[in-house]
Parts: sequence; structure tokens; C-alpha cells
Amino acid sequence: MPKFKLPPRLPFRRLGLAGLGLIGGSLVKAFMPFGGLEISVFDNNPETVREAGRIKRLARVTSDPDEFLSWPLDLAYLCLPVKRNVEMVARMGRAGVPYPVTDSGSTKGPITEAALAAGLNFCGGHPIAGKEVAGFRHSTADLIRGCLFLLTPDERFGPRQKELLGRLKNFHELLGCRIRLVSPAEHDRIYGLISHLPYVTASALAGTAMAKGAPDILSWVGTGFKDTTRVGASPPLKWVEVAMENSANISGFIGDLIETLTGLQTAIAQKNEPELTRMLTEISAFRRLLAKD
Amino acid sequence: MPKFKLPPRLPFRRLGLAGLGLIGGSLVKAFMPFGGLEISVFDNNPETVREAGRIKRLARVTSDPDEFLSWPLDLAYLCLPVKRNVEMVARMGRAGVPYPVTDSGSTKGPITEAALAAGLNFCGGHPIAGKEVAGFRHSTADLIRGCLFLLTPDERFGPRQKELLGRLKNFHELLGCRIRLVSPAEHDRIYGLISHLPYVTASALAGTAMAKGAPDILSWVGTGFKDTTRVGASPPLKWVEVAMENSANISGFIGDLIETLTGLQTAIAQKNEPELTRMLTEISAFRRLLAKD
Repeated sequence: MPKFKLPPRLPFRRLGLAGLGLIGGSLVKAFMPFGGLEISVFDNNPETVREAGRIKRLARVTSDPDEFLSWPLDLAYLCLPVKRNVEMVARMGRAGVPYPVTDSGSTKGPITEAALAAGLNFCGGHPIAGKEVAGFRHSTADLIRGCLFLLTPDERFGPRQKELLGRLKNFHELLGCRIRLVSPAEHDRIYGLISHLPYVTASALAGTAMAKGAPDILSWVGTGFKDTTRVGASPPLKWVEVAMENSANISGFIGDLIETLTGLQTAIAQKNEPELTRMLTEISAFRRLLAKD
Repeated sequence: MPKFKLPPRLPFRRLGLAGLGLIGGSLVKAFMPFGGLEISVFDNNPETVREAGRIKRLARVTSDPDEFLSWPLDLAYLCLPVKRNVEMVARMGRAGVPYPVTDSGSTKGPITEAALAAGLNFCGGHPIAGKEVAGFRHSTADLIRGCLFLLTPDERFGPRQKELLGRLKNFHELLGCRIRLVSPAEHDRIYGLISHLPYVTASALAGTAMAKGAPDILSWVGTGFKDTTRVGASPPLKWVEVAMENSANISGFIGDLIETLTGLQTAIAQKNEPELTRMLTEISAFRRLLAKD
């Protein structure tokens, strides 16, 4: 690209991002090529801050939350673990920050309530992108580019959120993301079912293999076990926080899963071949609606 | 390779393979390069037989089981669905075939019993290789080459099985397979836990998403749901037969899984963060023992 080309119209010029983990790091790397965007970052971990300090393209780097709160920003982007995002929102309310705030957490209900209570201009976000590894060193711009990106507005924030929502939409479209809107409550129900429940399921399956077959059992496994348990290898602390924040949805869906499993178990134990065939044929046809990847 | 090089010492010269599906087709394609090996195949499906008939390297191709049984062979290799493998073994017993028999099915108990009852010289096998698609058109030599390959001897067959076992070991080592021996009963327990249970689990998870979120839910999913349910896309008929043959192991392990899920559900519903952290930390450490793939 020639140097004199006009930069894209940026909806925000001064971005302050908190939390340089897998998602925060990937967002920073994806936004870095945009000239005219001033990116400053905060992370609790001094080691990560040292690493980020070597990136010349970043305007400011700190491990001090008070310093983060003192920066002049057009947007604060919270990518901390979900519980600390909520704490930061409360802190921003007390500090009376003048700029709008978004986040990238996997649950949207609690942070939305916290931002309302704090009187912030806030709209949550959630990139549908992940790996079973965590941390800045695994982050990559390609994790975010082109992903499904959810924005979770809530009418109670009033008209200034509508304006923020439009700018957040434009901002993430710069990364090729496909934007969808969904309410925080509906988000937490949907992702309780198709993200948090799969994590719990993969973990329960790995845990059952551990209980019934450890330590030798892993030496026998093929791709079926590996695929089905893969997300169970994720660092658990993120998921524990998600489970605490979305506990009603998740525990309800675990109950639904147990009901489905019990139906399959009954058909298998009774050697009811027609019933098992009926159930599995319907399910496999449904699953095959998903494009191969 | 120069043409005058001596071929490898083949433990069998005339191979008759029944069932040109994903595994049977992949075995044929993997063995085809070995000069001096005469390969004949039987498949029930006339369309598959027509396709296989275009492969010049095959000595004989038929869709007639009586013709298959009339061929002079050094080894019969059964790769039909598991229930039809068992039927074929009984039929071979009635026909009094003089050659040894092996199979590639996912369950080893029932066919071993059937082969004993039929008076055959038999030793079961199981390549740990699979895809969530079936059929000859998806078969490939690389699916088998280098895979973990189980042989499942049983003392009740006596000394002639020992000799067969040695030859089967050498035969599959030609494909770079890593051979392990395990009894039929232990095989069915192990693979009930790490192959059949993951399939049931993936299906139950997809079925729960279908029941609670269809038809829109699939438009929201990310890699976690895709990975965890991937084997649930498999054609169900194979798995129904496997579940019927290994029903006691599988239904028992579903019970163990439900117990694990209930433990996680309780910790989540009660927002017992320390207990959930303890459980998930232990499980994720166990799962991470598996090498990345």
C-alpha cells in the first residue's frame, strides 16, 4: 500500500485495551496495521507488559490499573478474565471515565449489569474465536480477522449506546468480522448451550476416561477421543469464571444433556436397535448441517 | 525403486477382502503397492464393485458372497459392518474354509466368539483410524499407514492362532503400523470408554443443541462446538451396530459420564468455585498429556 493512501475512517482514534491474553493480544495484533490508530495497553502481568513494551507500534504499556484509567481514550476495550472485566467496569464508574467501553468476554449478562450500575456508556462484544491455549504468546491477528463477532446492546443504555454500537460495528468490520447483534441475556443462553456446555461435556468425558482408565488409557486413543475432548485441555480458570457467571444456563443445559444421554443409554442397554437408529439418524443429520471445516 | 529389487517377504500371498468401505478400501489401497500380493475383493454394493472393477491391480471383484467363499485364499480379511462380519464368520464355518480369517471391526468380543464357534483359525484386528465419513470413495492408503493397529488374540484358539498372529503382525508392519496386542474383552472395554463413549457423547451434545436451539442454533457455533460434536456427524448405522455389540460396556460408561457431569453440574449450580476449579484443573492436566495433533 503506498504511504500517501488515506487511512480508513477510524471510528476511534485512541484505543486503550486491558488484558493482553489470547483474545486481547489477537485484537491488538489485528488492529495494529491501521495507521492513525493509537493503541495503549494494560496488563496485570509484568512479564507480558515487558514483552509488549518491545512492540514499537504501541503508544503506552502499563501494568498499573490507575495509570490505565488516567489515559485519554476514545474507547476502552476490556479483554481481562470476565470477573476482572466486571471489577474494572465498577472501577471505571467510580473514576467517572468519560469515554465509552466495550469488552470481549464470553458472558455478557453480568458485565452489562455492572456497566449499567456504573453509569458507563457501554456495549459488550464477543468474538467467536478461540483455541485450547491461552496467553499473549499464542495470540495472532488471524484469530480475529473474519470471525463471527457479536455485539450485545441493551435498550436500557439509551440513545448514546446506539451511536456507540454503530461505531463498534464499523470498527470490527475493518477486521473483516461478520457482525451479529443479540441481547446479553439471549447471548448467555445461546453460548451456554453451544460453547459452555461443550466445554463441560468435553471435560466430563476426559474426566470419565481418567477415572475409569488412567494412567494407561491415553496410549490407546484415536481421533474420536481427541476431537471430542479437545476443549477440555483449555486452561480451566477462564472457564471456571464463565461457569460462575452463567451458572443457571449451564447447569440447566447439563440437565438437558443428561436427559439426552439417559435416552441413548436406555436404548443401548435394552438393545433397542430401531429406537437408537431413529435417535442417531436424526442427530447426525442435524450435525451434518454444519459445513466442514 | 528398481524393478529387480526383491519384494518384501509377504506373510500372505492371496488376500481376499470383504467390504470395500472406508477401512476396507483404505487397506486395499495401502496393500496394493506390494508386488506379489494377489488381492481379491467382495462387496455387497454392485456400485462399489463396479468402481473397484476398474482397478486393474485387483485379481477378482465380486458382489456374490458364494463366489467370495469359493476363492483360494491365504487370508480372508473381513471389513464389513460388524454384524455382517459375524454373519460371514458363521457362514465361513459352515463352508469349512481352509484359510485363516481376520477382521477390522470396532468390536472384538462377538466376532471372536463367533469364530470360535465356527471352528475357524481367527485373530481379530482393529486399525485405530477413522473419519466422520464412510465409504470407498473416502478411503485412502494414508488412513492406515502408520496407525496404531491392534491385534486381539484369544488363548482358546490354540497354537495355530499364535502362528497366524505372528504373520498378521508382520503383514501390518509392512504398512508402518504400530502393533499392540490386547484381549478381545479388554479391547471392548477400552474402546467402549475412549471411542464408543465419545461418539455417544458427541451425539448427545449435538442432540441437546438440536432440542434446545434448533433450527437457528448452528449459525452461532464456533470451533468448540464443532470439535466436540464432530464424530456425531458419522453415519449412524455403523455405530448402532457397535452399540448393540458392546452395549454392556457402553451403557455402563454412559452411567459413569452422567455421574461426572452431575458432579460438575452441582459445583456450577452451587457456584462452588474452589470445587469446580479443583475438578477442572485435574481433568485439563490429564487431557493435556495427549500430544497435540
